[in-house]
Amino acid sequence: MTWGVDNLPYGVFSCPGERPRVGVRYGDKVLDLAPALHDEVFAAPTLNPFMARGRAAWHDTRTLIQNKLTGDVSVTEAHLVPLDQVRLHLPFEVADYVDFYCSLEHASNIGQIFRPGTEPLQPNWRHLPVGYHGRSGTVVVSGTPVRRPQGQLGKGTFGPCQKLDMEAELGFVVGVPTAMGSPAGAFEDHVFGVTLVNDWSARDIQSWEYVPLGPFLAKSFATSISPWVTPLEALPRIPGRLQDPEPAGYLRRQADWGLDIALEVLLNGEVVSRPPYSAMYWTPDQMLAHMTVNGARLRTGDLFASGTISGAERGEQGSFIELTWNGTDPLKLAGGETRAFLQDGDTVTIRATAAGLTMGEVSGTVG
Amino acid sequence: MTWGVDNLPYGVFSCPGERPRVGVRYGDKVLDLAPALHDEVFAAPTLNPFMARGRAAWHDTRTLIQNKLTGDVSVTEAHLVPLDQVRLHLPFEVADYVDFYCSLEHASNIGQIFRPGTEPLQPNWRHLPVGYHGRSGTVVVSGTPVRRPQGQLGKGTFGPCQKLDMEAELGFVVGVPTAMGSPAGAFEDHVFGVTLVNDWSARDIQSWEYVPLGPFLAKSFATSISPWVTPLEALPRIPGRLQDPEPAGYLRRQADWGLDIALEVLLNGEVVSRPPYSAMYWTPDQMLAHMTVNGARLRTGDLFASGTISGAERGEQGSFIELTWNGTDPLKLAGGETRAFLQDGDTVTIRATAAGLTMGEVSGTVG
Repeated sequence: MTWGVDNLPYGVFSCPGERPRVGVRYGDKVLDLAPALHDEVFAAPTLNPFMARGRAAWHDTRTLIQNKLTGDVSVTEAHLVPLDQVRLHLPFEVADYVDFYCSLEHASNIGQIFRPGTEPLQPNWRHLPVGYHGRSGTVVVSGTPVRRPQGQLGKGTFGPCQKLDMEAELGFVVGVPTAMGSPAGAFEDHVFGVTLVNDWSARDIQSWEYVPLGPFLAKSFATSISPWVTPLEALPRIPGRLQDPEPAGYLRRQADWGLDIALEVLLNGEVVSRPPYSAMYWTPDQMLAHMTVNGARLRTGDLFASGTISGAERGEQGSFIELTWNGTDPLKLAGGETRAFLQDGDTVTIRATAAGLTMGEVSGTVG
Repeated sequence: MTWGVDNLPYGVFSCPGERPRVGVRYGDKVLDLAPALHDEVFAAPTLNPFMARGRAAWHDTRTLIQNKLTGDVSVTEAHLVPLDQVRLHLPFEVADYVDFYCSLEHASNIGQIFRPGTEPLQPNWRHLPVGYHGRSGTVVVSGTPVRRPQGQLGKGTFGPCQKLDMEAELGFVVGVPTAMGSPAGAFEDHVFGVTLVNDWSARDIQSWEYVPLGPFLAKSFATSISPWVTPLEALPRIPGRLQDPEPAGYLRRQADWGLDIALEVLLNGEVVSRPPYSAMYWTPDQMLAHMTVNGARLRTGDLFASGTISGAERGEQGSFIELTWNGTDPLKLAGGETRAFLQDGDTVTIRATAAGLTMGEVSGTVG
């Protein structure tokens, strides 16, 4: 099954009247880890204390859970809670949130749309994974309603955003911190797992505000993540995409951290895009190496996202601004409706699957 | 005295072998607030729980402390710890860190240096306080050594930063949060106090990386703040600088939040600049209104900084890139040395005073 013992993502859940605690998803149930493993670290309302334990503990815990679930079921049965009886919470406390810009196709599309008539890729783009800090305080769990932001939409224009968009991304969650001044070590020694990310974006606010210091209010009103964090061990790794020119020494790949993950973007239940993560130019190990090469320290709970995932083919773009070419070529939906950007009441859902397992979904309704 | 009952900034201190807790500076001593006020909120290792109580509590606590310090000294004497017996810590847990760009003169200078031959101010600059998110995990307290970052300094160039700089700023600390989707109310209902900020900057890393998503590694390696947070009530308010054009409705000033604070930048003990905060174009109430107009929520511990404070006169610029015009006109120091950017071993100290009181200093040595 897709939520079987090869998957086992971690999340934070609560039953009515009880405090949130850590669980692992198995089938249509949640394994209540604190009692099942006799370990109080899972009684915490976030994954952070467990994530801070590090790679050896992550591996041993995963093995232990797999053994319990494949062993005498009568023992674990008591700690399996049906999913429909629980509420899912933000799975970890977000420390710093960084968003990258790792898709060559996305960066090229945005460059053409925002800066027509110029070279779409900036001179630095092929030399480093471009990134910036986002607002960690507005990272919310799937299902949280998303209020349409208001703001300056251009010179002398104030009002509700008219170009509300989404961005389909993967997010990488840091477990093991670094000391200030010390670049991170191996990717798998720091990164605990992967979430789905919808980096909601207000394109009209963005185009007016972003020069010269980057996106700010266009992105800070909401960022949704999936309730389940898939451990690195569960994910199908593939070689990263060929890079030209060869990156600087600190960015050279030491292992395969390309990920064979297929995403789907649904608008009100209808698939409107199928972004392939395998097409990404910069891999997550390179993001981590870049983010810390200057000595910036990592903390448990840091979240860094890939940036919008867009493939080269039509229907593979991870944002509406690309799918509709800034609204000039609206999507034709099954019911006969069209859509340039998001309307109030629209629900956007991002799903992802990888060889034999699902990462679940992140969903949000605009209101 | 400058650290008298009209000042009374808050900080977090510890004595050898004891846990950090909240104190107020008075003269050359620290008032140990938990026992002095019989209030366990001050036994916390950060100001956050106290800051979350809100404006009425801040005012009442300040009045109570003033009464204790001006009343029967024999009662409070036992709770006054000599400053030379304590260690000062980061005074609050930083939630999100936002840096603005509120000095007209600084933005004009940087525009001329980074984009010569073009209009120095971007079209949006006079319409909104430009800002971006920084890295909250590398905000450190005064005295923390600052490691020179390494990184890409341009196409094909990797190594230690050659243009290490500082930025003299004020930082505003949020006490009272907002709910997602609700813009902030009055400035004084949310903002607890003010710190000094040195936003260390790697100019060569910045100029290569910052297009199109803004500064990232150039700023994320360290941001130093002063150990004392001066409460709003202590600060001398003045009208904000005249603005042309008149800003959008949500940015109109409801009260005077210009601040008559005079800063000094010292390099190895020698004053090299005197930035006047009174010259700032955008006031902090406008920063708060802008930051939340899109519904981004505030959390207790959010820090937002003014951006570099630069006046119009020679010797009033709050960064070396301006003082030396990107290194082309090095500073001549008293001992006969010159300095374009910061060298290893250099100590930068920012001090500030305001009518009759001091805000103390933020200091850091490059190593």
